Amino acid sequence: MLDKPRRLALLAEGLFTPLEAKTAVGVLRYRPQEVAAVVDSGHAGRDADACVGVGGKIPVVGSLEAAARLGADSLLIGVAPQGGGLPASWRATVEEAVGRGWDVISGLHEFLADDPVLTALARRSGATLHDVRRPPARRPVAARRAAGLEATVVLTVGSDCNVGKMTCALELVEGLRAAGCRAVFVATGQTGIMIADHGVAIDAVPADFVAGLIEEQVLEAARAAEVVVVEGQGALHHPGYSGVTLGLLHGCCPSAMVLCHQAGREQVRAPGKAAAADDPVIPPLDELVRVYESAAGWVHPARVLGIAVNTADLDENAARASLERTRHQTGLPTTDPVRFGVGPLVEAVEQARRRDRATLG
Amino acid sequence: MLDKPRRLALLAEGLFTPLEAKTAVGVLRYRPQEVAAVVDSGHAGRDADACVGVGGKIPVVGSLEAAARLGADSLLIGVAPQGGGLPASWRATVEEAVGRGWDVISGLHEFLADDPVLTALARRSGATLHDVRRPPARRPVAARRAAGLEATVVLTVGSDCNVGKMTCALELVEGLRAAGCRAVFVATGQTGIMIADHGVAIDAVPADFVAGLIEEQVLEAARAAEVVVVEGQGALHHPGYSGVTLGLLHGCCPSAMVLCHQAGREQVRAPGKAAAADDPVIPPLDELVRVYESAAGWVHPARVLGIAVNTADLDENAARASLERTRHQTGLPTTDPVRFGVGPLVEAVEQARRRDRATLG
Repeated sequence: MLDKPRRLALLAEGLFTPLEAKTAVGVLRYRPQEVAAVVDSGHAGRDADACVGVGGKIPVVGSLEAAARLGADSLLIGVAPQGGGLPASWRATVEEAVGRGWDVISGLHEFLADDPVLTALARRSGATLHDVRRPPARRPVAARRAAGLEATVVLTVGSDCNVGKMTCALELVEGLRAAGCRAVFVATGQTGIMIADHGVAIDAVPADFVAGLIEEQVLEAARAAEVVVVEGQGALHHPGYSGVTLGLLHGCCPSAMVLCHQAGREQVRAPGKAAAADDPVIPPLDELVRVYESAAGWVHPARVLGIAVNTADLDENAARASLERTRHQTGLPTTDPVRFGVGPLVEAVEQARRRDRATLG
Repeated sequence: MLDKPRRLALLAEGLFTPLEAKTAVGVLRYRPQEVAAVVDSGHAGRDADACVGVGGKIPVVGSLEAAARLGADSLLIGVAPQGGGLPASWRATVEEAVGRGWDVISGLHEFLADDPVLTALARRSGATLHDVRRPPARRPVAARRAAGLEATVVLTVGSDCNVGKMTCALELVEGLRAAGCRAVFVATGQTGIMIADHGVAIDAVPADFVAGLIEEQVLEAARAAEVVVVEGQGALHHPGYSGVTLGLLHGCCPSAMVLCHQAGREQVRAPGKAAAADDPVIPPLDELVRVYESAAGWVHPARVLGIAVNTADLDENAARASLERTRHQTGLPTTDPVRFGVGPLVEAVEQARRRDRATLG
């Protein structure tokens, strides 16, 4: 986890649910061997799988003391609240962790290392405060440098926030590697960075340099890869985050995209907020495919190669029916990469690579 | 200028041309009474009008000492280099100004007040360092709150950077006021903020909060206005800045847009960089109208009401012919607001207001 082996306590106090504890769920899915416990007093006594469907028997506990008894030596903030502040109710827990000498790993917009109380505590206890969302000091402006690379650049895009873009990208990389392809994951958000141990949280970057910083990341990744899979952010139809989405799209200049969606979601939803009647409606997926292809084409042409549908809320029959409807509606390979495997998307990417090579050759 | 009356020296060393000294040109056009001199040793001895076509007889001088003799008491950095750093060659001049006790007004991404040498100098001399691009600490996420206001929200959008979006917005506000309409200008970039004495430089804001901060600005402006005219940024086809453009568009939820273009510009051009053969091509303006209307409609519908063409590079006959071609191509009211007056755009906005009111009533 970032710089050394750890035993993590994941802080998700009051919010250890699949929709709200996105960061904790990502770490539980991809780095479970490093998690000692989840801290949420309201769910204490249960296990991770019972609360969020991943993480198996990893216990949920009610205090840092209980996590310490399970071997925890670091605290990871497992929730990304809208606005990115440190909830007041968590401050005492973070201070306690720092006082214990635990390093704290945070993906908040509010940087722990800028907090004088926490830094003073950390100085005394020897703890390190890791703010994975802190942007680099560099200020590159993008200029389509990631277009036309030898490596195929694939971006996951979405119908909304929190539909599975990061998970789809990670599964795709794993699937491509299993198929013998040198694939590299480029993390663009706090959870992805914690899982991959590197990356840039582009939503925290000064807006002028979003595209330029992802361009740098893609150029770097492409030196050692046949396929670069970039974690998408936000959605073009999201009133709050659409600019992040477009900057990312134009900075990484993909030739291929995978459109991610959550089955049954009809309206764009603010993270941590209940659905409301006047939330913007998500267009039909075939229309979304055209929108993403048009927007990409303003700078560099890209095609949507397939659809990833998160069916976690459905039973198996309903999930299969949902995928079939989407396949029919879009005419594209469709899967739930977690539930039914990422195979159809791996195949679509490999086909695109063969087509690109034939064109280049 | 921000907090008190001043006599400004505009620093544009080596770059006092219309394309490169965008900030200086804006200040010379809209606040000339506060400018004592322009500092550019390569053009010393000439006047502003001869160099950039505005600012009349304001002299260009080769040193701060010469500017001081003309009464200057503050330094304004008149250029916005790509990437936003302080050019090394200017540092000595900025240090000299601070040493003289002059306040320095800067729109750079690199904040002067974060520089230990400059802050130490300023402490000794009593100078103040104004970084107008420093983002507010607030972290609001936009949620279409600016949609459906009683006030009409108009956004200037563009075919590229540096085509006249700020100037068009300022001229439109002046024209509307002259016609008896309570119009308010919302500044979104460093030059606009210097001219208006308030605003948020949204390109320096962490990307997640671009839309949210402009939403706040629009809601605030709408309390006292019939028409809120928002200064546009970037362009949807710009590889580096498109995310800023879309975040701004979705944050301010305009019902009307004015599309700005520079006559003869065929490719997107990086500021401060010569045109290159592989720069992205600007689509035909009628296509751009549709693109901006589609992109707006992802969150809130908006129509392009007219076109503003910057014809500064053309003689009068060529300028009139250019406007006529654009009028024919788009079917929309078209003018060069600086050269031929903003009347057609004022009329288009007033018509839209009458139409909106009829719909609402």
